[in-house]
Amino acid sequence: MNEFSLIETYFNWGGSNLANLGIGDDCAVIDIDANYQLVTSVDTFIEGVHFPSNTSASDIAYKSLAVNLSDLAAVGARVKYFTLALTLPNINKKWLSQFSTSLKSLADEFGIVLVGGDTTKGMLSITINVTGVVKKNKALLRSSAQVGDLIFVSNTIGDAAYAWKQLQNNQTPSEYVINQFNRPKPQLFLGQQLSDIANACIDISDGLEQDLTHILTRSNVGASINLDDIPLTYEVKTYIEKTNDWCLVLAGGDDYELCFTAPVKNMNLLKALQNKNNITVTQIGIINDSMALTKIGFFDKQCCSYQHF
Amino acid sequence: MNEFSLIETYFNWGGSNLANLGIGDDCAVIDIDANYQLVTSVDTFIEGVHFPSNTSASDIAYKSLAVNLSDLAAVGARVKYFTLALTLPNINKKWLSQFSTSLKSLADEFGIVLVGGDTTKGMLSITINVTGVVKKNKALLRSSAQVGDLIFVSNTIGDAAYAWKQLQNNQTPSEYVINQFNRPKPQLFLGQQLSDIANACIDISDGLEQDLTHILTRSNVGASINLDDIPLTYEVKTYIEKTNDWCLVLAGGDDYELCFTAPVKNMNLLKALQNKNNITVTQIGIINDSMALTKIGFFDKQCCSYQHF
Repeated sequence: MNEFSLIETYFNWGGSNLANLGIGDDCAVIDIDANYQLVTSVDTFIEGVHFPSNTSASDIAYKSLAVNLSDLAAVGARVKYFTLALTLPNINKKWLSQFSTSLKSLADEFGIVLVGGDTTKGMLSITINVTGVVKKNKALLRSSAQVGDLIFVSNTIGDAAYAWKQLQNNQTPSEYVINQFNRPKPQLFLGQQLSDIANACIDISDGLEQDLTHILTRSNVGASINLDDIPLTYEVKTYIEKTNDWCLVLAGGDDYELCFTAPVKNMNLLKALQNKNNITVTQIGIINDSMALTKIGFFDKQCCSYQHF
Repeated sequence: MNEFSLIETYFNWGGSNLANLGIGDDCAVIDIDANYQLVTSVDTFIEGVHFPSNTSASDIAYKSLAVNLSDLAAVGARVKYFTLALTLPNINKKWLSQFSTSLKSLADEFGIVLVGGDTTKGMLSITINVTGVVKKNKALLRSSAQVGDLIFVSNTIGDAAYAWKQLQNNQTPSEYVINQFNRPKPQLFLGQQLSDIANACIDISDGLEQDLTHILTRSNVGASINLDDIPLTYEVKTYIEKTNDWCLVLAGGDDYELCFTAPVKNMNLLKALQNKNNITVTQIGIINDSMALTKIGFFDKQCCSYQHF
């Protein structure tokens, strides 16, 4: 099967598909609206580095698109289109079919369109480049946190890292935490709603401590956070109580929840957003002018977030 | 060295660089103009598949961007920005420095800006996603060839394939042909000029026969081409005269020249373009309604272009 038939067979999804946007030509051609800016992000997923070798094709497809969508969520974007560069060791029709079905399902859920791709032979690797739009000068940035802003995270932190830790120790994670690891939900709706509420925002991919530090560094501010305020599921809370392993929560990463800062004057807007849309966000700290991150709680070790190299 | 410092060290080029466009945030933020459409294309380059293992970092960087620029050339686009997903087996500072310098040099030559990237650990692989713009509905497509159109190619065909053949046979290619293989020149200027002259266009990456066939298939037309009219350098011509190995020219690929069709009424425009800009294009055939590709000349074998799988 050659590259052309591979794409035709597995990634020509009909409807708002490749061909409608000009694929089959050398480039996809895409309409753009005035008064908007493009936002774009790229991430590579490699077997054994970003997911265990026994991960299903369906979960690989889901997560490799979801983590890119999470980047768009963090800037408050509306998603538009993505490209897929897929490197495969061989042609496994069942694998490709499952991969494609799962990718399409997530793409459809968020209304993002696959406009181009490349398939190559090599070790399994997936590079996805997502593009969306924001109204001009309305992108949420890391660099806009203000002293006095309250710091929030969405949902719960540490579930994916706990699942990963259990997998590495040959334990069986609960369905809930393994699902948080394999199928993190991109917080696109929340990100879009935050553009008139938050000052700074990031998605937690590398770990809460490292990602919050990105906001602090780029905004030239400091912060204090209360470990006891970090929202945890019951099983992660139980694990922490037993082990005091706060590194799992602070540096585990793979959460794909949003961490954002918002001024006190916007708290009514934030509460209204939560009530209207059943969104859970929790205040974990406050931005200050210390130029450092202070962690208040029973924790005295430095955390070192995950690094690829 | 972590991902952040890797990007800062090797790919923060100052001037029109990452930071100005918002990198360091989750996404790059890019201004767009009204009355234009985006065109985007992605290609992956893998060691041992797309380039020999002993290829220099400088040549790898050049070619992996150049072949993507060539895709934009084929639709007549003006280039805007690109993203880089770089997978490396280890951190080799000298290699990274050479790779970065070469990439920047080519990017600067064509005025395209690096806006985002991801670095991961694994077998050497480079995925580049380039984006440009075309005036609305002015993209050159593969699907617009008309019966009676003349068929042209730019410059010469087969040089890169001849260099690759010599490398595989442990022969030493001439500096000219190895340069055509490692450093093909994206025909962006020509592509832009063709938007008011040509009906259909493609860049020759997979081989003249296969790529011309893409035009024929998508335009629902046929063609005849004269082998003797295909422009060849002296050394490829000499090789063909000795071996009758037309497959090298027709299916070798890696040319990154443009193959386009244009109506007879536009020949004056095309000639003026050639004279004014010292551009070489050569007529090699004509579009007909046969729904087949007829090759006229001393050649009676079917050619099979290179396939990854």
